[in-house]
Amino acid sequence: MIKVGIVGGTGYTGAELLRLLAQHPNVELLAITSRGEAGSAVADTFPNLRGRVALKFTDPAQSTLPDCDLVFFATPNGIAMKQAGALLDAGVRVIDLAADFRIKDVPLWEKWYGMPHASPQLVAEAVYGLPEVNRELIRNARLVANPGCYPTSTQLGLLPLIEAGCVDTAHLIADVKSGVTGAGRKTEMPLLFAEASDNFKAYKVAGHRHLPEISQGLSLAAGHRIGLTFVPHLTPLIRGIHATLYARVTREEDFQGLFERRYASEPFVDVLPPGSHPETRSVRAANICRIAVHRPQNGDTLVILSVIDNLVKGAAGQAVQNMNLMFGFDECAGLSQIPVLP
Amino acid sequence: MIKVGIVGGTGYTGAELLRLLAQHPNVELLAITSRGEAGSAVADTFPNLRGRVALKFTDPAQSTLPDCDLVFFATPNGIAMKQAGALLDAGVRVIDLAADFRIKDVPLWEKWYGMPHASPQLVAEAVYGLPEVNRELIRNARLVANPGCYPTSTQLGLLPLIEAGCVDTAHLIADVKSGVTGAGRKTEMPLLFAEASDNFKAYKVAGHRHLPEISQGLSLAAGHRIGLTFVPHLTPLIRGIHATLYARVTREEDFQGLFERRYASEPFVDVLPPGSHPETRSVRAANICRIAVHRPQNGDTLVILSVIDNLVKGAAGQAVQNMNLMFGFDECAGLSQIPVLP
Amino acid sequence: MIKVGIVGGTGYTGAELLRLLAQHPNVELLAITSRGEAGSAVADTFPNLRGRVALKFTDPAQSTLPDCDLVFFATPNGIAMKQAGALLDAGVRVIDLAADFRIKDVPLWEKWYGMPHASPQLVAEAVYGLPEVNRELIRNARLVANPGCYPTSTQLGLLPLIEAGCVDTAHLIADVKSGVTGAGRKTEMPLLFAEASDNFKAYKVAGHRHLPEISQGLSLAAGHRIGLTFVPHLTPLIRGIHATLYARVTREEDFQGLFERRYASEPFVDVLPPGSHPETRSVRAANICRIAVHRPQNGDTLVILSVIDNLVKGAAGQAVQNMNLMFGFDECAGLSQIPVLP
Amino acid sequence: MIKVGIVGGTGYTGAELLRLLAQHPNVELLAITSRGEAGSAVADTFPNLRGRVALKFTDPAQSTLPDCDLVFFATPNGIAMKQAGALLDAGVRVIDLAADFRIKDVPLWEKWYGMPHASPQLVAEAVYGLPEVNRELIRNARLVANPGCYPTSTQLGLLPLIEAGCVDTAHLIADVKSGVTGAGRKTEMPLLFAEASDNFKAYKVAGHRHLPEISQGLSLAAGHRIGLTFVPHLTPLIRGIHATLYARVTREEDFQGLFERRYASEPFVDVLPPGSHPETRSVRAANICRIAVHRPQNGDTLVILSVIDNLVKGAAGQAVQNMNLMFGFDECAGLSQIPVLP
Repeated sequence: MIKVGIVGGTGYTGAELLRLLAQHPNVELLAITSRGEAGSAVADTFPNLRGRVALKFTDPAQSTLPDCDLVFFATPNGIAMKQAGALLDAGVRVIDLAADFRIKDVPLWEKWYGMPHASPQLVAEAVYGLPEVNRELIRNARLVANPGCYPTSTQLGLLPLIEAGCVDTAHLIADVKSGVTGAGRKTEMPLLFAEASDNFKAYKVAGHRHLPEISQGLSLAAGHRIGLTFVPHLTPLIRGIHATLYARVTREEDFQGLFERRYASEPFVDVLPPGSHPETRSVRAANICRIAVHRPQNGDTLVILSVIDNLVKGAAGQAVQNMNLMFGFDECAGLSQIPVLP
Repeated sequence: MIKVGIVGGTGYTGAELLRLLAQHPNVELLAITSRGEAGSAVADTFPNLRGRVALKFTDPAQSTLPDCDLVFFATPNGIAMKQAGALLDAGVRVIDLAADFRIKDVPLWEKWYGMPHASPQLVAEAVYGLPEVNRELIRNARLVANPGCYPTSTQLGLLPLIEAGCVDTAHLIADVKSGVTGAGRKTEMPLLFAEASDNFKAYKVAGHRHLPEISQGLSLAAGHRIGLTFVPHLTPLIRGIHATLYARVTREEDFQGLFERRYASEPFVDVLPPGSHPETRSVRAANICRIAVHRPQNGDTLVILSVIDNLVKGAAGQAVQNMNLMFGFDECAGLSQIPVLP
Repeated sequence: MIKVGIVGGTGYTGAELLRLLAQHPNVELLAITSRGEAGSAVADTFPNLRGRVALKFTDPAQSTLPDCDLVFFATPNGIAMKQAGALLDAGVRVIDLAADFRIKDVPLWEKWYGMPHASPQLVAEAVYGLPEVNRELIRNARLVANPGCYPTSTQLGLLPLIEAGCVDTAHLIADVKSGVTGAGRKTEMPLLFAEASDNFKAYKVAGHRHLPEISQGLSLAAGHRIGLTFVPHLTPLIRGIHATLYARVTREEDFQGLFERRYASEPFVDVLPPGSHPETRSVRAANICRIAVHRPQNGDTLVILSVIDNLVKGAAGQAVQNMNLMFGFDECAGLSQIPVLP
Repeated sequence: MIKVGIVGGTGYTGAELLRLLAQHPNVELLAITSRGEAGSAVADTFPNLRGRVALKFTDPAQSTLPDCDLVFFATPNGIAMKQAGALLDAGVRVIDLAADFRIKDVPLWEKWYGMPHASPQLVAEAVYGLPEVNRELIRNARLVANPGCYPTSTQLGLLPLIEAGCVDTAHLIADVKSGVTGAGRKTEMPLLFAEASDNFKAYKVAGHRHLPEISQGLSLAAGHRIGLTFVPHLTPLIRGIHATLYARVTREEDFQGLFERRYASEPFVDVLPPGSHPETRSVRAANICRIAVHRPQNGDTLVILSVIDNLVKGAAGQAVQNMNLMFGFDECAGLSQIPVLP
């Protein structure tokens, strides 16, 4: 039983962390902070938690976070980099669900995120929390940078090909569609029901912040700098990411077998049989990535389909998976929910 | 550990039963039948169950249903009344999620359902499976008639008032809105996405089959025949029922307190604080009914708001609750899911 | 050809006015103002208008509004009451789509809208712009108070009964469901896609601002103060209002005939055949109210179903209809769009 | 004024043809046929048309189709090829909205559509009805093959590049997302609200029938056989197609200027300013294709975004545009609807 705190609990990743942690056998929820909602019951903001989470939001300044074994940051970008250091100094381990510690190249991070980094030294220490790549490092990490939702679905879909060195890594394409919660719980015009419903659009085609994160991960796997065109789209879904990935074959392989072997022992990656089309609802509210491998008309372009729930395997679920690794729990503890369909 | 079978597993209530039973600590799933899908894997029809339910659909004729301790009928109306008898004779207990055994007045049932009843004698024996009314009878029942979704939300919202005798029972109004899964998994034109999305309508205002079921339950509670105007509406939700109930006060009462006392020890009925507005998503995918009590402008008309997930407390979840009662399990076993929000 | 201006063009009623007026044969759009968007092209905010409306938003202070024959206020409540007077003095006629001039009882308005009224003398002059009630007064009005969306659908559904004096006017019930645009184009949390989609709830059951407006209209028709329970609901629709109205019969009538006669010569009210269930999509994007009259089980409770598009017959379309009356145009000019289905 | 008939009027393209033709200044609707609905009013099937289209469906065998100047086939594939010949022989001109006459290579058509072609000789005569390519041929055509929705959005997005010979035509990628009406008005399980809502998936990645149609059009423009990877996706939209198109640059060009020049005089193709992201709702219910040209990070991969309403520019609207050309009407007649947003 570990003591856990959450900083910034009024967003969707915070709400999802609460849903998962409230059912986790090894966790005691100690504190959840929110400057704006301090003093009000968590269940007033998230009525699904009524009767299940008795906590009130506390002011960050007066919280018991230093008494925790682990603190999750479910905050906007730029918060954890200012506050994680003190917690780490107090012996608290930290998982940041925002982007502060994801990019190793600090000037690159500063360019994309538009602010100076407050803790460059921690960036070096932080472990990128994709268990399928960094499982052993995560076990011993003090500070985990939990991956973004687009990066999780895209990297899991492309890594087997890149590790095997059988595709053109200079011209990868990731056409990715995200549900609206991927943008967070923000009162912005394009996220209104009347704007986002019955509508579909691409956005930030010129450059999205997840591009350098994906490129870093794939380049590490390739052993050289890869080239990626990444086009995100806003889709009228509450939850769900569907990545459609295109890669040109440079060396023949049993591609289906390659994926199956790569993920054979992964508890949360499911390689579907040939010819499958994963649906986002098949992973709704659960910590699963489902992948299908296609080679249309037996041509030289592979099409990989990869789906996750952006709030679970793309955020809170992956964070709990990382917590399980960090504290020696069963990696699947608290993550056995069956996806909700319909 | 009991052995459980499901007849008719390709509908939404069947899928939801599978999701719940696959996580139930006291249940071994033995068989799920489907004439149309016999031989194919359950997970091919419901991809959320992949990796969690290994069963294939079996032909009803060749199934192991008689070896079960309990069989759920998740079939269209008119099936269970033909098949339940043989199973009961074989010592199998039965919960019917359809309407075959809900109405005690057999000619009335035949009028509304448009067919002769095949087992009138079983109707008399069947226990109406609303635990908040019939808990003790359910414990010992061989045959349980699981309530409909509209009747569950409407009865739970009106029963405290009727039992207390403080409203005009001759002119009750239930204006109820249902998600599309309330109609089942049927390939009918009005249920298409392109017809039901971004659209709202009432239907069957002249008379819906759930009217006699609700009237029966409320009349029993009143001790006399009640009068009810029931208007169902089709709403662009996947899951969820919202009942807005109107009753004229005939005797003053502490109405909020009345509801709180009535449901104080009910594990799955949540009376909200005064002034609340329950949302359907606050119960999504969980076995809960949330109720709020209003008296606008302190007039003589009470407005009761009652929400459930039609597939859980309105169908499969309530069936599992009934199973727990019938077999002496913890009433909440397998039903501790936290609602999924957003 | 009249010159027309719009104050406050960045909301949904402003956008809809632009869509309708850009196709109107007798209108020249002279100016559309917005403090926040002054200088930017209207089509940048509303991409559907690209190539069809060349205007830019102008600052209210520098606009050509006084040169107009007619100015529409598509502003939040409390703006028109401050600015309409000067325009009227300059000889400009005014239609206010907000609530400033709808309630004749100024203290009552101030109580519900939470501010002192800036122009009580204009309230007396203003004509309530429901053409089905006030057609002749509207023709000569300088200032028209365009009705709210809930009040339009509810009054059109109840007026024939109340005018005929055949129902209990002390206990009317209006259970009304609105699409999300009914709340305007506001960046508020409950209006986010991730909050409003796949969700249904009642709100403001204790009292909604449209209650006194509806009560005023129905009381005028009755000749005495009526009693109404009004429950609004937020529905995952972009557009559309569905009013389900309940009234107790006090005198027998041919109710279907009553409605048909009442609206026989109304161009924008369509009484459906007996047994019908109007759908909100059947009026989507068009200036129509469709009504069905039901009497379930031939009891003493009538159920009237009334649907409109809240942005058209519930706002901008009705405003154009009023404009047509005020300037002697064909009442249907610019309003002949066929509803968009699917 | 020409006399027009529609064969197969109960689908979505039929409904949309009716909406457009009922407002067309040069058209008299003479007949609309449906075997299943013969004798019932069109407005009973499509309630938006109530009061605007007085026709009843007639049995195809007893219809007045031969008296028409033009007949639209809004039928499933395989009908027009059997019936168009007789009408053409009777002097009636024909526009087929299905696929019967789109593919010039008859064996190829037979392979993808799974049936022998009934009128190969008419295939040779038919003109492919993409006005932006075949305007002059369409004017004089007796028989027009109206393009599919995916092919319209994809070809309009890629043609300028291919005609200019500045991209690698061997490895084009079209990642296209379609609303649910793209599949027609069919009672199939995956098209149910409860299956398609809040869900996203690719389908037919191995090969979709629109692939040979797109390839034919692009190959004609290229002057050689092009290579295309085409991945269609089902999106929870009622209407709308969003094509995200990827092409590798082989020769430098002013790509933005290229598109602007190519479509400068096209009334229904709108090239957006650099940096734009067209939204499907910006063309909802109108005959417009909006296109944006991107070159992310100034790399060698172009990203073209192209949106249409699949029922309008992707079907019925384009058919009316073709009709206008065939009969010498203003090309925009009856097609001036402003898109409906929100």
